[in-house]
Amino acid sequence: MTEAAAGSDRYWHTQVSAITPETVYIRGYKLDELIGLPFTATTFLMIKGRLPTPQETKVLDAVLTGVLDYGLEKSGTAAARYVVSCNPHVQAGLAAAALSAGDYGLATENTARFIRDTYAEFKDSGETDMDAFAEKVVAKASAEKQRIPGFGHQVFRYTDPRAQILKQIAVEAGLWDEPVQLYEAVHRAFVKLPKREHFPINDVAVLAAITVAMGFTPEESTALAILGTLPGVIAHISEEFASRKVQRLIPPETVHYDVPQRELKEDLAAAGWDSED
Amino acid sequence: MTEAAAGSDRYWHTQVSAITPETVYIRGYKLDELIGLPFTATTFLMIKGRLPTPQETKVLDAVLTGVLDYGLEKSGTAAARYVVSCNPHVQAGLAAAALSAGDYGLATENTARFIRDTYAEFKDSGETDMDAFAEKVVAKASAEKQRIPGFGHQVFRYTDPRAQILKQIAVEAGLWDEPVQLYEAVHRAFVKLPKREHFPINDVAVLAAITVAMGFTPEESTALAILGTLPGVIAHISEEFASRKVQRLIPPETVHYDVPQRELKEDLAAAGWDSED
Amino acid sequence: MTEAAAGSDRYWHTQVSAITPETVYIRGYKLDELIGLPFTATTFLMIKGRLPTPQETKVLDAVLTGVLDYGLEKSGTAAARYVVSCNPHVQAGLAAAALSAGDYGLATENTARFIRDTYAEFKDSGETDMDAFAEKVVAKASAEKQRIPGFGHQVFRYTDPRAQILKQIAVEAGLWDEPVQLYEAVHRAFVKLPKREHFPINDVAVLAAITVAMGFTPEESTALAILGTLPGVIAHISEEFASRKVQRLIPPETVHYDVPQRELKEDLAAAGWDSED
Amino acid sequence: MTEAAAGSDRYWHTQVSAITPETVYIRGYKLDELIGLPFTATTFLMIKGRLPTPQETKVLDAVLTGVLDYGLEKSGTAAARYVVSCNPHVQAGLAAAALSAGDYGLATENTARFIRDTYAEFKDSGETDMDAFAEKVVAKASAEKQRIPGFGHQVFRYTDPRAQILKQIAVEAGLWDEPVQLYEAVHRAFVKLPKREHFPINDVAVLAAITVAMGFTPEESTALAILGTLPGVIAHISEEFASRKVQRLIPPETVHYDVPQRELKEDLAAAGWDSED
Repeated sequence: MTEAAAGSDRYWHTQVSAITPETVYIRGYKLDELIGLPFTATTFLMIKGRLPTPQETKVLDAVLTGVLDYGLEKSGTAAARYVVSCNPHVQAGLAAAALSAGDYGLATENTARFIRDTYAEFKDSGETDMDAFAEKVVAKASAEKQRIPGFGHQVFRYTDPRAQILKQIAVEAGLWDEPVQLYEAVHRAFVKLPKREHFPINDVAVLAAITVAMGFTPEESTALAILGTLPGVIAHISEEFASRKVQRLIPPETVHYDVPQRELKEDLAAAGWDSED
Repeated sequence: MTEAAAGSDRYWHTQVSAITPETVYIRGYKLDELIGLPFTATTFLMIKGRLPTPQETKVLDAVLTGVLDYGLEKSGTAAARYVVSCNPHVQAGLAAAALSAGDYGLATENTARFIRDTYAEFKDSGETDMDAFAEKVVAKASAEKQRIPGFGHQVFRYTDPRAQILKQIAVEAGLWDEPVQLYEAVHRAFVKLPKREHFPINDVAVLAAITVAMGFTPEESTALAILGTLPGVIAHISEEFASRKVQRLIPPETVHYDVPQRELKEDLAAAGWDSED
Repeated sequence: MTEAAAGSDRYWHTQVSAITPETVYIRGYKLDELIGLPFTATTFLMIKGRLPTPQETKVLDAVLTGVLDYGLEKSGTAAARYVVSCNPHVQAGLAAAALSAGDYGLATENTARFIRDTYAEFKDSGETDMDAFAEKVVAKASAEKQRIPGFGHQVFRYTDPRAQILKQIAVEAGLWDEPVQLYEAVHRAFVKLPKREHFPINDVAVLAAITVAMGFTPEESTALAILGTLPGVIAHISEEFASRKVQRLIPPETVHYDVPQRELKEDLAAAGWDSED
Repeated sequence: MTEAAAGSDRYWHTQVSAITPETVYIRGYKLDELIGLPFTATTFLMIKGRLPTPQETKVLDAVLTGVLDYGLEKSGTAAARYVVSCNPHVQAGLAAAALSAGDYGLATENTARFIRDTYAEFKDSGETDMDAFAEKVVAKASAEKQRIPGFGHQVFRYTDPRAQILKQIAVEAGLWDEPVQLYEAVHRAFVKLPKREHFPINDVAVLAAITVAMGFTPEESTALAILGTLPGVIAHISEEFASRKVQRLIPPETVHYDVPQRELKEDLAAAGWDSED
């Protein structure tokens, strides 16, 4: 702290926190004083660098709770349970679950980037009619066979009930702003495509939209989604420990083995190995 | 859900969550209805399987905020920044940070186990005088050169201010119960040892004590400590991305290289390799 | 390199490698010259700091190939496939597999420590009769209900064929030395226990024994076991990518769900939450 | 094995390995018989599904040894040492190192994809003059401000000595085929650009080229690069354990802290929080 001016040519720079002999400063506030605030509020402060309003805190609570359902129907839960069945350390299980967020699940950043970039293109274009611009976005994506992220759901058709609830909370908080309105216009254009009329904006997309509206980066959006799933992962790891099963394997009755037997010696010779090798 | 009775001989069992075509049940509650509760409360529900009281929620907020200070003075922050400087995926950074919790930092489970097990021995012993029992615990640990976890701090002497605040919150919540009182008795006996009089009960130990009092397992205690640090890790990962530095290395001026040059050919010959190998 | 003497008070010290403007020195040898040696030999050099003999290289080849079978019957393979099914990055899958090595599989370090420590106790004891000493080790472990690592196998009884092959290679290389001979004595004492007569020394134990005899630390022993499994993990990750399945879940027919439905509102009220909370 | 025909509708399919009560079949060969082959050869077998020739084994040895230099100048080494300084488990350190491979280091897959895709476009184009085609590739990349992966090195100018050695081994093995020849043509066109004349094809690019020529997928290429670095990571983890330092932090003299102090109470009020919140 005392070296605020000096040292700006050092290898590392940080504005996140600093320790003095008396206390820890988190984004400039004494940690001792922060204890007592809701964890969701201090999470916002830590990442964004400023205190949230009570309403922003409420919205972030909804975002984090919205991805709570990390059940056995998620790759990350399965990975975590397999890992700790052999290596009974909760750290290893949490790491495996975090690593399971990706392009095929939980990485809200793809939708967040789409919303952010599409809106930037809209503003740059000088156009004012969102629906007309959205039609072009969908036409271009169709022509280039590009997937638009965030539409469709494995179970729900036409509307995704959780997405609806999250949207309502965001609307009440004044966070349903132009970028996400443009995204809704893109959705309206999208469902005019054949066989797409029943594709809802899904819950992950609404989470992405809200985190963009709150000013989080796409990567922070994914990180918050991971954070929201970790209580479920902890619950599953505890359940795994309590099961007293060890060394989980993939149940044999779910596997098709296609491994025909071969002869090593003759195949080695055919590959050019002397018997001496 | 419909198969509640059937299937109990299956390879996997879970009481955490279940999906139906309409919704997701988290510990029996519809996720749609849970959205709106504080994330700290739903975290408690997810892990413990029951709703917390508002007071329990407040204590868990304090626990999670209490470990928020994941700065450059923590191994996990450093690991996360190094990882994402080369592999710019937030998942990888979060995993590295989670993996950095261990015996030398953040793994509150060691203290949690000590508190739990020492109290169990106390009850089994039939003794009623905590201080007398504590003297024996310390004497035995000294004799066996066993470290008692949770005493002492790198910076703070006699008292740890953050530990004091956390204790106060736990006392108000009625969570400063017999096991932790016994642990305090062990501390009183411990500081009678030479050169130990200034060792406070540190903040990690108070966190461990509170999580034990709330009924979390030792592993869940560590997991909650990790959860509390992740917002700080996210902040540092974002700062790393914003720095536009890539492929971070350990600054050469901080390294002592001790790698004398050797001759390969003669050393190979000395090790028994033909020139043909 | 030029600073060999200076800088010994720096934060980091290393004897592993150093870079100059012309080349990289690995344990003192130019990397350019090392290219051409078998990878197993350079692996030995890197970890141990000296060149192996051709025979040591052959033994290490056997150790690494000996754990190659990382199939769907291993927790780590399952974890890796689940992870990459959602996050298609090979790094994430390899990390998940490495994290799956632990007390219940592949962590040869437990057996390695037992062999090392038991032999140290034997030498300290001044005894000369291995079998007599081994009887006491087994009696003590039985009395304290301590498990002796490395005995018994899920499939094989009396002898483990792979362990036999590995032992033969170690014997030929002169690596079947006193510590492992003592371990065999412990095994002879162990199988005199009731219902233990069919417990072989298993393959993991022989791997641990060989790595101890070669001078690797227990942690290096586990690391080598992980290294040996990674080609199998890579093969499974490739197979997973080729399957074009995404977001793998635990097959529902293998799960018993035990999640009774509950009413949120009344349970919240019972937990002390106002309707306003 | 017995169910080779049946079960093809099961959730999992594998051709990698299978266990019988007598042995383990790796790609159809008995593991007991494979013990004795060089680990590099069994690594090739495991991943590619067929035995390598002795020459292919030699090339793969060169590839794996070529990335051995995982020193303190690599993000992954730093990450691994930070992790195990707090959590002394070798698994966690290896995982952190694997996670450090990415777009800014060690992920050879980017160059591998470029080589593969550029060659496919060349064949599709019907053109026969590699240099003419290469000029267009470079012109297009320049116009679209796309980076061509694999050119340039932090230290070496004009030629990268390690790349030269690896190329020579590949040429001798007959693996310097058309795709990589086209890539060299692209390089010849590239160095005609202003200020690019001293950019060599770097070692990572040659590794990528060789793995493509050997028939590995881009992801397998990255995985092999990670495998090649792990012995160095193991060496550094051992060095870290031996240092007896714990809880490594980023040396304060390398950090610029920019965390001005702020007042919590007034900032909370300004953000709309009641004093009661």
